[in-house]
Amino acid sequence: MSTSVIDRTASTEHPVLDVLAGRWSPRAFHSENPIDEAKLSSALEAARWSPSASNSQPWRFVVARRGTALHAQVVEALRGFNQVWAGDAAVLIVAIAETATADGVPLSHALYDLGQAVAHLSVQAHSDGLVVHQMSGFDPELVQEFADLEPRFVPTTVIAVGELGNITALPEALQARESAPRVRRPIDETVILSA
Amino acid sequence: MSTSVIDRTASTEHPVLDVLAGRWSPRAFHSENPIDEAKLSSALEAARWSPSASNSQPWRFVVARRGTALHAQVVEALRGFNQVWAGDAAVLIVAIAETATADGVPLSHALYDLGQAVAHLSVQAHSDGLVVHQMSGFDPELVQEFADLEPRFVPTTVIAVGELGNITALPEALQARESAPRVRRPIDETVILSA
Repeated sequence: MSTSVIDRTASTEHPVLDVLAGRWSPRAFHSENPIDEAKLSSALEAARWSPSASNSQPWRFVVARRGTALHAQVVEALRGFNQVWAGDAAVLIVAIAETATADGVPLSHALYDLGQAVAHLSVQAHSDGLVVHQMSGFDPELVQEFADLEPRFVPTTVIAVGELGNITALPEALQARESAPRVRRPIDETVILSA
Repeated sequence: MSTSVIDRTASTEHPVLDVLAGRWSPRAFHSENPIDEAKLSSALEAARWSPSASNSQPWRFVVARRGTALHAQVVEALRGFNQVWAGDAAVLIVAIAETATADGVPLSHALYDLGQAVAHLSVQAHSDGLVVHQMSGFDPELVQEFADLEPRFVPTTVIAVGELGNITALPEALQARESAPRVRRPIDETVILSA
């Protein structure tokens, strides 16, 4: 299987780092190459050093490599189209928010902080030549069951990590999405008040 | 006022990008230099191109430059120690999660996606020589009032952005925190299941 060369670098209106402008979320993952373990370790290390409210680090990860029973369990938990393509990814990581401490004290910024940690993970992975696609479409209760999680641990996304695969191996409906232009709301509509 | 030279680069166990290892959250901000507008635009642009669930982009920002009435309002909303140091920052940005669409459909990943957008913002800013410190300690209702926000828009953090200032200008209690070693939980305790 050959790797497609796809460049979907964002058309930014102000200069941003190549690793941020060039990052996107493919669905075509290389279905044979195993994960580069050094790159995976670096990606997790990047998440580790992310900032969080009072350094609470309210994030946990389930890391499942393709070919393992755990990977199959994560694929099983995916919903809809995600189950069609994401199983090809060399690694599926479940990102889990710690929404309260063991003593029951709520961690109000757990989801926010988890998002930051995964952003750091994805920036590091992309910089190392891997691709990353985060999914919210999965059944968190299934993950809570097979990972035997206390209710305070909330599975929030499943993250496909691996090498870019060949777009033509995807079903046609997904191929179109894969090459559509990347679009974002103008910054003027995001900055709602400024002085 | 001279700028302190402080290097708090993380002691990572696996190689990560300099911009991720070197990023930290200072409290000493330069209290005179205005924000570099080009760098601020790049930081917001980086946030803009962040990924989000179904590309929902559930983030909004209030951008307040030091010396404006808006900046004073944001400082007023800060809690505790944050009010001591954060007013020095050239810009205070309120990061706001869009927790439901205008039609009332919940956006379950709004906080998570907002965290990612702010991570991208902070990585870009740090790469451009700015420093960033996110705060959860503030009164979101005060912000909702002065920014006239619908309840579905939830102010989540206030982000100080500017140039690094002189640590000796901080109260002594804060100086100690500023030079303490950066610590994180070992990755083995974060990856709770692996195969």
